[in-house]
Amino acid sequence: MIEKNLEKSLRVRKIKNGTVIDHISPGNALNVLRIVGITGKEGMIISIAMNVPSDKSGLKDVVKIENKELAPEEINRIALISPNATINIIRDYEVVQKNKVILEEKIVGVIKCMNPNCITNSNEPVESIFKVEQTNPISLRCLYCDWVIDYNNIVRQF
Amino acid sequence: MIEKNLEKSLRVRKIKNGTVIDHISPGNALNVLRIVGITGKEGMIISIAMNVPSDKSGLKDVVKIENKELAPEEINRIALISPNATINIIRDYEVVQKNKVILEEKIVGVIKCMNPNCITNSNEPVESIFKVEQTNPISLRCLYCDWVIDYNNIVRQF
Repeated sequence: MIEKNLEKSLRVRKIKNGTVIDHISPGNALNVLRIVGITGKEGMIISIAMNVPSDKSGLKDVVKIENKELAPEEINRIALISPNATINIIRDYEVVQKNKVILEEKIVGVIKCMNPNCITNSNEPVESIFKVEQTNPISLRCLYCDWVIDYNNIVRQF
Repeated sequence: MIEKNLEKSLRVRKIKNGTVIDHISPGNALNVLRIVGITGKEGMIISIAMNVPSDKSGLKDVVKIENKELAPEEINRIALISPNATINIIRDYEVVQKNKVILEEKIVGVIKCMNPNCITNSNEPVESIFKVEQTNPISLRCLYCDWVIDYNNIVRQF
């Protein structure tokens, strides 16, 4: 009986107010936190479930951040490592906004080019610009020097 | 009513089998995962709550790892960053073992000395050995070269 009730309940309970990042690729919750700049030291109440069954398909990770609504520019970075993630803004237990993350065509000023000779790594005031070379797994191509940055090198930057 | 029920429920539900790392210093759950070598990519079902109220005092983090019983040598590393953590081994929803992490007097072969000239960083087959210089925040002193490694440099190694 206890087991049946527990199996039916969510691993991580609903939140009253805040942001739910759902349908994160399984095993990527900690990378998602890194990409939005959350370490835990900020004091926010955060709950996370990793590698749990998804209604849609297979497994997923979920992150729930209480009392904080993530801004769009923070959200879209998530698409770099988890293109199917959805972002739900919760107010008083209700989903008031639901969005898929958007992988922008050009990624400006977020990722560092790995080519030490790239102009974006010189002292010139030039912001990095990448275009998406490939999705799943993602890779990005630098618009200045043509170097390609793969998934592991993207994740490592956060 | 919904709110009352939700407030009473755990943020992260009970697990059937596995390990619960409880009373982690608030904001340190992700460091604890790093120190025991878990990224999420291993496929284990993991739930985490950060900065939640503790029965004992103030706030805490909790990590629940399903279907995996952590080994003592993995557990005691946690004391380096969260000396009050407790480890509960769960079988069929019951706590069958409950231990505090133990900060060993000598930390052997776990932490790298930050002194590039230390013999443990040469090509000699010498394992690093540190003794605890200070707790809360922790610092360690290298038994070979006397360099002191602080909390941030410990965490960064995992």
